[in-house]
Amino acid sequence: MPDFTDKLRPSQPDGPTTLARERAQSSISIDELGNHLLSSDGFLQRQARILSILQREPLLSKDKQQNLSRPERFKLGLARAKLLRRLVDRYQWSYDDYKMAEYLVSDVSPYFLHLEMFITTVREQASEAQRAHWMPLIESWRIIGAYAQTELGHGSNVRGLELEARWDPQTQEFILHSPTLTASKWWNGSLGRIANHAIVVAQLLLPKPGSSDQYVSHGPHPFIVQVRDMKTHQPLEGVVVGDIGPKYGYITMDNAYMLFNKFRIPHSAMLSRYSNVDPETGIYTKPAQPAVVYGSLTYVRAQIVHHARLVLARAVTVAVRYTAVRRQFKDRDSDGSGPEMSVLDYPTVQIRILPLLATTFALHYTGLAMRTVYENARQDVERGEFHSLAHMHSMSSGLKSLCTMLAADGIETCRRALGGHGFGGGSGLIELNNDYLSKPTVEGDNWMITQQVASYLIKKMTTAVQAPHTAGSDELDSRFKEFIRNGVSNSRTAYRVLEKDEDIAKGFELRATALAYDAYQQRVLKKRSWNSLLIQLHKLSKAQSKSILVREFFTALSTDNTLSSSIKTIMWHIYRLFALHTMENEGYEFFRCGAVSQSDIDILPGRIQDLMAKIRPHAVKLVDSWMIPDYLLDSALGRYDGRVYEDLYNRAHRLNPLNEITFNPNYWEHEIVKGSGDDGSGILSKL
Amino acid sequence: MPDFTDKLRPSQPDGPTTLARERAQSSISIDELGNHLLSSDGFLQRQARILSILQREPLLSKDKQQNLSRPERFKLGLARAKLLRRLVDRYQWSYDDYKMAEYLVSDVSPYFLHLEMFITTVREQASEAQRAHWMPLIESWRIIGAYAQTELGHGSNVRGLELEARWDPQTQEFILHSPTLTASKWWNGSLGRIANHAIVVAQLLLPKPGSSDQYVSHGPHPFIVQVRDMKTHQPLEGVVVGDIGPKYGYITMDNAYMLFNKFRIPHSAMLSRYSNVDPETGIYTKPAQPAVVYGSLTYVRAQIVHHARLVLARAVTVAVRYTAVRRQFKDRDSDGSGPEMSVLDYPTVQIRILPLLATTFALHYTGLAMRTVYENARQDVERGEFHSLAHMHSMSSGLKSLCTMLAADGIETCRRALGGHGFGGGSGLIELNNDYLSKPTVEGDNWMITQQVASYLIKKMTTAVQAPHTAGSDELDSRFKEFIRNGVSNSRTAYRVLEKDEDIAKGFELRATALAYDAYQQRVLKKRSWNSLLIQLHKLSKAQSKSILVREFFTALSTDNTLSSSIKTIMWHIYRLFALHTMENEGYEFFRCGAVSQSDIDILPGRIQDLMAKIRPHAVKLVDSWMIPDYLLDSALGRYDGRVYEDLYNRAHRLNPLNEITFNPNYWEHEIVKGSGDDGSGILSKL
Repeated sequence: MPDFTDKLRPSQPDGPTTLARERAQSSISIDELGNHLLSSDGFLQRQARILSILQREPLLSKDKQQNLSRPERFKLGLARAKLLRRLVDRYQWSYDDYKMAEYLVSDVSPYFLHLEMFITTVREQASEAQRAHWMPLIESWRIIGAYAQTELGHGSNVRGLELEARWDPQTQEFILHSPTLTASKWWNGSLGRIANHAIVVAQLLLPKPGSSDQYVSHGPHPFIVQVRDMKTHQPLEGVVVGDIGPKYGYITMDNAYMLFNKFRIPHSAMLSRYSNVDPETGIYTKPAQPAVVYGSLTYVRAQIVHHARLVLARAVTVAVRYTAVRRQFKDRDSDGSGPEMSVLDYPTVQIRILPLLATTFALHYTGLAMRTVYENARQDVERGEFHSLAHMHSMSSGLKSLCTMLAADGIETCRRALGGHGFGGGSGLIELNNDYLSKPTVEGDNWMITQQVASYLIKKMTTAVQAPHTAGSDELDSRFKEFIRNGVSNSRTAYRVLEKDEDIAKGFELRATALAYDAYQQRVLKKRSWNSLLIQLHKLSKAQSKSILVREFFTALSTDNTLSSSIKTIMWHIYRLFALHTMENEGYEFFRCGAVSQSDIDILPGRIQDLMAKIRPHAVKLVDSWMIPDYLLDSALGRYDGRVYEDLYNRAHRLNPLNEITFNPNYWEHEIVKGSGDDGSGILSKL
Repeated sequence: MPDFTDKLRPSQPDGPTTLARERAQSSISIDELGNHLLSSDGFLQRQARILSILQREPLLSKDKQQNLSRPERFKLGLARAKLLRRLVDRYQWSYDDYKMAEYLVSDVSPYFLHLEMFITTVREQASEAQRAHWMPLIESWRIIGAYAQTELGHGSNVRGLELEARWDPQTQEFILHSPTLTASKWWNGSLGRIANHAIVVAQLLLPKPGSSDQYVSHGPHPFIVQVRDMKTHQPLEGVVVGDIGPKYGYITMDNAYMLFNKFRIPHSAMLSRYSNVDPETGIYTKPAQPAVVYGSLTYVRAQIVHHARLVLARAVTVAVRYTAVRRQFKDRDSDGSGPEMSVLDYPTVQIRILPLLATTFALHYTGLAMRTVYENARQDVERGEFHSLAHMHSMSSGLKSLCTMLAADGIETCRRALGGHGFGGGSGLIELNNDYLSKPTVEGDNWMITQQVASYLIKKMTTAVQAPHTAGSDELDSRFKEFIRNGVSNSRTAYRVLEKDEDIAKGFELRATALAYDAYQQRVLKKRSWNSLLIQLHKLSKAQSKSILVREFFTALSTDNTLSSSIKTIMWHIYRLFALHTMENEGYEFFRCGAVSQSDIDILPGRIQDLMAKIRPHAVKLVDSWMIPDYLLDSALGRYDGRVYEDLYNRAHRLNPLNEITFNPNYWEHEIVKGSGDDGSGILSKL
């Protein structure tokens, strides 16, 4: 309905004017930097091609989705997920095309687990015969599968799972049974309402030889199990399965609970590429190389590390563009004649956003490095060499923990820097934050898995201490041996972190090495209990992972010979900002181990402010280079064109279903919706 | 529907067993500590009395509310708010009774602004005649009002508001007009769908004497304006008003946008206790004492500071109880025979939760002190003395910033410490977090308002420097003068923070004083620009506010003579944990100013771990003492009785509407709900 507000425009200078000036003041070529970051595997071309298809589909409009209830939002998520799968057929999309579509739509797909853990587990752990039977059904989506490992009472400790798979030699079947409530499967994605099959992880119980009623547990094993009827989609007899209910995010995902009551499955259900139970003798065959099981977990962690940069880039894009457009107060020391200041010109806004902008690039280069390490290790494994697994496992664990923490906290820091509008749905950061808040916990809790890094580093230090004068077997070993040869005291010459870029990376490495040595001392020499050291080990892991971020950033810039010098200069500033800002926040640790002098630490705040001033004019173009499309951002505040206030108003005035309802504000009348005559029993019935 | 899961129980030891053991191992009397904290103003008795009434009302059941859409949830919120108001009549509740009911229901009431800013502004800024007219209508809820100040383009900078109130001498009316889109009122609570009146803050424009078309702005002034028709509840002609749409939290609040098109209001609309326009001459009378305007803002900030402890206590209650119940892994150094460990026994869980438990008490004592300072200052003002306003304003600004940051970040830290179940709706922390995330921004952005603290401290330091040898006029002045008399260098004898409890507080004060002196040097002596110092000023404000938290905690324990010695001993441990943990995280600043020696800082991590070990056995009883009822917690994880897993399962299996829907998972079929025949157009229509 037209009204007088249709003709109103924002006050001047408006968003488009401001962003045009921002872009004019920087010499950065967005195309050059964007291609440098994202074109190596055709990402940008794919993004453009898929985006144009998605934007033609009304079902993929995000305009009103934040107003839906959980059941409605789930229906929408399912309808979209089915549509995407039909688009695969229609446009003959590759797997990468499909994943791009999922990324742009930004719903967590209810088919997610079918395409990831279900298919991967069958591919990697099923026997030839099992694969021949199942893979065609899975790949054609004739069956939909999930992965049911975590239970109500056990997540991190997989060995503690309670669900039993008891071998019955008479019938040559396994009997799945949940002995307790805490044995209920829990959190298993895609299984709550959608999947009809699942990989079910259960304790394998085999009869004790010579006994008729005693069983021996052989630990958790995967079974492939049909759980719902293919016609009615109802749970099979002996299975209780459903969705666990509302969550922080993941609103379009049906995370499941599932219990079994003496539910019989055939011998062929046990995935038997690595382990097996002989159906005739009941004799168990163990996997030859247990390390292979870590493969897919490490892959998922490496993926999470690589993805973190794009997640954080979304938040930083919104924050930089909006704080450039938003103006508030005139300069307190000015004569008061000019316009109000862009809030991004306040150092207190810069200090929250620009280090995070720098973090997106740090995450990028480390993400690439992680991928390379993963691919090399995989090639090693395929050649039968397992020596690089421990390094890869440690690196992926430490980085998963650190990078998801940086990204999750970074989103929220950006959101708060937006002022009041950051709390509104037009920020585009609410669903992003809600969904991403799962990441610090899933695939290995961020605090728990740092033990794996520390354990690896203590082992490496123990080896290094034994022969410090021999040549190092790898970079870490060499660094540790050098530390020991130089004497472990802290009275060393500090690195010149304000003058030499490589010295910054060395400073981070020295801190991590010193902490690794401390941990070695406590655990190996002083025999302190593991649990009493956990806080220290967590700090060690973080320090080590941060040294990787800094070193990979340094190496990428040092070895690059493609970037133009104008961009390269700015990228070095960004490197320094990321590293020195991190260093300032943890200044005491760098001081204590002698990596940085007290006088240098005292200079850091001023240096950081200088670096921010150098980066500030390029901030908008730097986020532009991440090439996040408006459709993905779904943010009034972060729009490429800067039409912030027009968009916020449009969402409020034209796209808000609450405004279609007239309420009755009189407390003495029970009616809620004016003229409805409903005395409130309508809403009561939903409780 | 009964099924085999009805009979299942969690594995042993279950939650009730575990919590019973936890409570048996601590000598703390919950009654004693609970009364110490919460009985001074009858809080606990009131809580019990109101709770028993609320729990009889089906409309106040929280079981399924997380599944509702925004419009449904708003209807529910309104229905509940009306019910609460009817309960006021039925039970003759006092205002405190009503606020208790709101607190326990934990919806943000759509009438919130009517009862707070609307009524307060009329009471404080209306003339006698205006009050006589409006107050009876407001107090009887015959009209519902809101407070419309913030605009789409201006929040923090109130002077920059764009809405105009132009005086028309011919008709003796003001003309409200929104010249731009950014002039739209925005965020104004209770106004989007509910209120029919509002205090509207607009730039007062008066004709320039001797000119017919030029106007002079006299800055923002409040007007009381009817905006909706009392019968139809539709906006009046010339007014566009509506709800701004989905937000992070505040789902039951109708935050508004509102614009005016040459909308005429009578002369009597301008609230004229302090300023006035003579209707005949058009001559403007200024307020005598502009400081009075700060009164209500300071009151709100003081309230927020005082409330923060209960908000954080909710999150910590959930975290402590659930991490006591949750078991995961056996001790790595044990023989493996015992049960798995309570995760609260891991130092890496303790270090996240126990300092926050300590923070609830720190917030408590400072909240009480803030209230006293506020009440004393108010009495001063009523006696016509304004000297204490600046101190109160600075203290409330700094503490509002710090305390809401501690509480907001603390909720999320607790949530992540819960593992996977922290991401689920059964945590009870999702709505709490979503709502509370507004607090770092509202009533003065947490970063912006720290300037007010710094500005105050620089002024105080400037005075102190001028006469360091005279007696101090107040505590701060004395502290600053002592600092100057002792010489400002950092080569002083460090405080013995590990041995003397008061030395900890002195260490915090010295840090703040040293930073205040630095800021004074930069701003006053070196004439640095204000904006270039903002980051430093923010750090100064935080340091000052933290010193208040530590000092007030110390003073409360030192002067208390009511607590039993067993509780007092534990409270001193809690004090030390709060302060030393804060100190460790910012170790470099304490070291740099000479407040703490390097050797003491190096000992802090070990000392903190020792303190946590001493507090750990009392953790469950300490959170019990906050007396948060299960109804308010609404948390499966945080239940008093520890029946965590039974409750999580009940929510999933029996209270989840998504499980009433059977979906069609076949992607090649458009149908979403199995058997519905709907091809997806149902959900499409909601987009």
